[in-house]
Amino acid sequence: MGLDSDTRKMPQGISQDAQGLIDFNKAIIEATADYAVSYKINTAFYETLGAKGWDVMEKTLEFIPKNIFTIADAKRGDIGNTSSMYARAFFETLNYDSITISPYMGHDSVGPFLEFEGKWSILLALTSNPGSQDFQTLKTGDAQVFEEVLRKSATWGTDENMMYVVGATRAEELSRIRQIIPNHFLLVPGVGAQGGSLEQVVKYGANKDIGLLINASRSIIYASSGTDFAEAAGREAAKMQGEMARFI
Amino acid sequence: MGLDSDTRKMPQGISQDAQGLIDFNKAIIEATADYAVSYKINTAFYETLGAKGWDVMEKTLEFIPKNIFTIADAKRGDIGNTSSMYARAFFETLNYDSITISPYMGHDSVGPFLEFEGKWSILLALTSNPGSQDFQTLKTGDAQVFEEVLRKSATWGTDENMMYVVGATRAEELSRIRQIIPNHFLLVPGVGAQGGSLEQVVKYGANKDIGLLINASRSIIYASSGTDFAEAAGREAAKMQGEMARFI
Repeated sequence: MGLDSDTRKMPQGISQDAQGLIDFNKAIIEATADYAVSYKINTAFYETLGAKGWDVMEKTLEFIPKNIFTIADAKRGDIGNTSSMYARAFFETLNYDSITISPYMGHDSVGPFLEFEGKWSILLALTSNPGSQDFQTLKTGDAQVFEEVLRKSATWGTDENMMYVVGATRAEELSRIRQIIPNHFLLVPGVGAQGGSLEQVVKYGANKDIGLLINASRSIIYASSGTDFAEAAGREAAKMQGEMARFI
Repeated sequence: MGLDSDTRKMPQGISQDAQGLIDFNKAIIEATADYAVSYKINTAFYETLGAKGWDVMEKTLEFIPKNIFTIADAKRGDIGNTSSMYARAFFETLNYDSITISPYMGHDSVGPFLEFEGKWSILLALTSNPGSQDFQTLKTGDAQVFEEVLRKSATWGTDENMMYVVGATRAEELSRIRQIIPNHFLLVPGVGAQGGSLEQVVKYGANKDIGLLINASRSIIYASSGTDFAEAAGREAAKMQGEMARFI
């Protein structure tokens, strides 16, 4: 479940500021925790409030039950010594379980994240947005760039410390991806507001362990703009969990 | 000048915490402002302190004279609506003049930054780290991926709102890059501690307006670990400015 919480979209009864985001996230988490295996926090939405937004993020993490997997959807990545600092920030200071990483800068931009035991690096492979067609799908040899990202980066870690972001709107490409990385978990955004099909994703993307973390953000957290926003989010999360359970 | 300020590397007389970073950055900026056209703040180093680190970053920006160009070296980039949030965070909330952006997610991940008038987007093209050889230099058609990034992204904005990160350690590739983007400014890291050659960078990378922002971080800010750290940084900055002036 993606906590893309935006001050401008707060429901009735919630203030449009840092405290409002804290109240909103707390209520949303309480109402949905029974149905979520993971919460994904999109750092951009918090950084619009500057240091106060990072404070909201830290407080939000405290509301999440310890048995639920946390994802910093931060799309970080830099040269080695800088990536080490990002790894410390997200794995130690904030104690996230995982972080999304852009692969553009290559091995030494990812390696420092993999040194943290029990933590997960989630690399962008094929994303769900229109711009994914600009560089990710360029032909290189017999493959596309995103396939080369998968093939090469899979040797840097294991399927116990790496996952990949794969956009749900390209479900037909999932089977090709599964040929390259049969065992890794995939983080699949784009089901829900972005319009991907859950059935297609499971059909082409599931492996013997399921191997899918399917995300929905706006369709759940903004299910109602009234004072019943938390109950509505809980109902929407339960509905999506039910749809997923059909495939297990 | 890169403010890659690390609590673990604070000089004598400076505390190894958030307040120490503030004191350090203030002294370094005062000692070097006469020689710097720009300060580049590496967000990773601040995020290791969590919300407190973002607070240090906000305070540091206040110390920088208004006529000096500021760079958020943040390597952000995400789908359109999320990139819009990053643009608001860095261009509005923090009021940076520019931000570094990873191009992997394509046009809609960059476009929202270009909508801010008077602000600059600095795209990663060919970086200076070993991992730049993993994906940036993959062959695609007659070009390499980073050349395709330059060619395509140059149509998204203009040389008045876009720059590119080009690693100084590959000076010989600068002339090929200049054929694709003759007029854009280049942000060149890797002169100084990373070992690039200023002379090579100017020889192959300069255009009629010079067109280069050459960065040094550690070689200046950690010039001395004693109580004279600010004076030493000022001397080192003056020396580098003098070396650059020879080429103008």
